[in-house]
Amino acid sequence: MDTMGRHVIAELWGCNIEKLNNMSFIEQTFVDAALKAGAEVREVAFHKFAPHGVSGVVIISESHLTIHSFPEHGYASIDVYTCGDRIDPNVASNYIAEALGASTSEVIEVPRGMGPVKVEKTTVNAF
Amino acid sequence: MDTMGRHVIAELWGCNIEKLNNMSFIEQTFVDAALKAGAEVREVAFHKFAPHGVSGVVIISESHLTIHSFPEHGYASIDVYTCGDRIDPNVASNYIAEALGASTSEVIEVPRGMGPVKVEKTTVNAF
Repeated sequence: MDTMGRHVIAELWGCNIEKLNNMSFIEQTFVDAALKAGAEVREVAFHKFAPHGVSGVVIISESHLTIHSFPEHGYASIDVYTCGDRIDPNVASNYIAEALGASTSEVIEVPRGMGPVKVEKTTVNAF
Repeated sequence: MDTMGRHVIAELWGCNIEKLNNMSFIEQTFVDAALKAGAEVREVAFHKFAPHGVSGVVIISESHLTIHSFPEHGYASIDVYTCGDRIDPNVASNYIAEALGASTSEVIEVPRGMGPVKVEKTTVNAF
């Protein structure tokens, strides 16, 4: 497999607080996001923290999706990393941002597996 | 919990090919890396691909560590993301680079949870 990949780092602010604290909702959202992007789900691992917050990962054949949620701040830290050029990680990250009711998302895209690491583009979306 | 975090993205080249294809070695290396950095391990999920390659994640109380290995290219794509300022993610990523026998590592550090995303520093290490 070619090493080339696209890694989207998204900072979601102003999210729905209840959704950020709902592990089963987040897990289903992440699996759905992977499938909508055309990825193949391999492993799923999520963890609920006390008193609040969820961390989790979906390992896909094409790399991974992760989340760390901070309900008390309306914030979720998202990564969507896809190897190859068949899948657009933004499809998954945009789906997640909408599902969590984010009011803004700050996004950078980092090309992976292609030599020295650099940031390709930065975008800020207000919904 | 404060949203502030440090996300180290490391591209490891020239790694030991057999280690890159050894899932149990990689899993143990990642758990050890998390513990050496002072993190608390919560979930572990790894996957071995056919004919080669390993993907996996260690979810820690402080966020996560991930790997995608490409033995046929001597390449491993590593992320170490730690929330708070108690843990230095570079301790874990350096430990992993050494364990996998990387000849070079290209590293960027991305501050998370602190407003618009930007790259803080870029380093290239030759071992």
